[in-house]
Amino acid sequence: MKKKKVILTETPILQNRRTITVRFSEVDSLHVVWHGHYLRYFEDGREAFGNQYGLGYMEVHKNGYVTPVVKSVCEHKSPLRYGDEAIVETEYVSSPAAKLIFKFKIYHKQTEKLVATGETVQVFVDQKGELVLTLPEFYQEWKRKWKQL
Amino acid sequence: MKKKKVILTETPILQNRRTITVRFSEVDSLHVVWHGHYLRYFEDGREAFGNQYGLGYMEVHKNGYVTPVVKSVCEHKSPLRYGDEAIVETEYVSSPAAKLIFKFKIYHKQTEKLVATGETVQVFVDQKGELVLTLPEFYQEWKRKWKQL
Amino acid sequence: MKKKKVILTETPILQNRRTITVRFSEVDSLHVVWHGHYLRYFEDGREAFGNQYGLGYMEVHKNGYVTPVVKSVCEHKSPLRYGDEAIVETEYVSSPAAKLIFKFKIYHKQTEKLVATGETVQVFVDQKGELVLTLPEFYQEWKRKWKQL
Amino acid sequence: MKKKKVILTETPILQNRRTITVRFSEVDSLHVVWHGHYLRYFEDGREAFGNQYGLGYMEVHKNGYVTPVVKSVCEHKSPLRYGDEAIVETEYVSSPAAKLIFKFKIYHKQTEKLVATGETVQVFVDQKGELVLTLPEFYQEWKRKWKQL
Repeated sequence: MKKKKVILTETPILQNRRTITVRFSEVDSLHVVWHGHYLRYFEDGREAFGNQYGLGYMEVHKNGYVTPVVKSVCEHKSPLRYGDEAIVETEYVSSPAAKLIFKFKIYHKQTEKLVATGETVQVFVDQKGELVLTLPEFYQEWKRKWKQL
Repeated sequence: MKKKKVILTETPILQNRRTITVRFSEVDSLHVVWHGHYLRYFEDGREAFGNQYGLGYMEVHKNGYVTPVVKSVCEHKSPLRYGDEAIVETEYVSSPAAKLIFKFKIYHKQTEKLVATGETVQVFVDQKGELVLTLPEFYQEWKRKWKQL
Repeated sequence: MKKKKVILTETPILQNRRTITVRFSEVDSLHVVWHGHYLRYFEDGREAFGNQYGLGYMEVHKNGYVTPVVKSVCEHKSPLRYGDEAIVETEYVSSPAAKLIFKFKIYHKQTEKLVATGETVQVFVDQKGELVLTLPEFYQEWKRKWKQL
Repeated sequence: MKKKKVILTETPILQNRRTITVRFSEVDSLHVVWHGHYLRYFEDGREAFGNQYGLGYMEVHKNGYVTPVVKSVCEHKSPLRYGDEAIVETEYVSSPAAKLIFKFKIYHKQTEKLVATGETVQVFVDQKGELVLTLPEFYQEWKRKWKQL
């Protein structure tokens, strides 16, 4: 019997993990981080991801695009308090659409407890301010480079 | 023939509409409101709703509860710019669960264009910091009063 | 005896008073407005002043200038709490220099207690990004119109 | 002739230097950090100082006090832009009064250009919410330990 040739084309997981520290001004009168500040933590995560994988605001901008957030979701599992350190885990979600999708998990650094999960969706807007419906060339290259097909 | 008695039990829609004005500090380097600030606009909407229908933070607190946001979703349809006025429309979503659910629509005041939609989910936490799984008595009363059954 | 002619050349006081309401997200874990948010309240005051007297961001921008804040001072006299309403009183301070100076007083609306005082200083920067050392023409006109000489 | 004994009692300078990175959400429509965010940078500096010298919020709180900011001053010398790194230099200012005074200097990390200077003043408030006019015992000890007499 002839052995079947199996080709596994795995898409590598692109992920960044960075630490953030809860600031006094981020904590509300219930002594926990105000829910709205998590969108900043997600942005911190996206920025760290962009710096690690060469997909930061500056790279995108240099290529003639901006990528406004068109959707954000955040679910809170347990609170963060003043002085806590947390890990923001940002994972790229490959999509055939002209969108940048990231998933987030935030963990309490000491306890490793899951604090929050979330997602953001960004679109590409060109220099005329028009929404771009096909993947920009530089972004296709970026996907090829990182095997996100 | 006896006429059939028809009882229509309609749940009234509870809705608040308030105007907000975009501040300079809320606008980012793309000259539009930074996406994270919409969670503040939603909070502005919830507060106005609470004041109108007697379900504000103070009423909830007086009854021994706090209602942290455990989920928030925001979808952006068109931008807001510095100085723009917008209508935040906050609608109560009745649920059998011990949750406070609100849906939001934000419109540009002059153009009436839809700017964003969203949702927040809050839970009830008692004075011991425990999540409450059954509807608090004061909240059941509030629902009866407003026919949200 | 001849009566002496007295000419009183009074500079009218230009002042705006607007109400703000303390948001949940502005209150810190000590249950009072976090000190940094007062610079937003001052900005709210400046914007209301600009709208009232025709010296808003848009007028300044239309004339080819931006007016970044180069100094801000805030002194806190008594706290503001969640839900409090406050009056932001913004007063224009005339100066021979190419500077926009405003003084602020914030009062608790119900108790009329003084909450904070402050000052901001702005400079004029032209479209090349250069600091302007002489009063821009449109600003001189504005000062003449409001007798701020 | 007898030689005079000269005792030089120098007060050591207590200083912390930490790096911050400008976030996208901190940059305004003029493409520079919005002036109000500098009070957060100062707070970042105070927190780092507190951690380094054992005078953090937690130590103060453990001893029964909170230290609200009663005055803040910020002067802007040159702008910070998105992605810039800056050094926040926080220096303790010894005072006989029951006050915590810090001076701040912010430098652009790469160019070493001075970005901003500032000062904050904090007072001690006890658990009854009363302003304390004499130096709390733990703070006197702290001053002795660090030779800030």
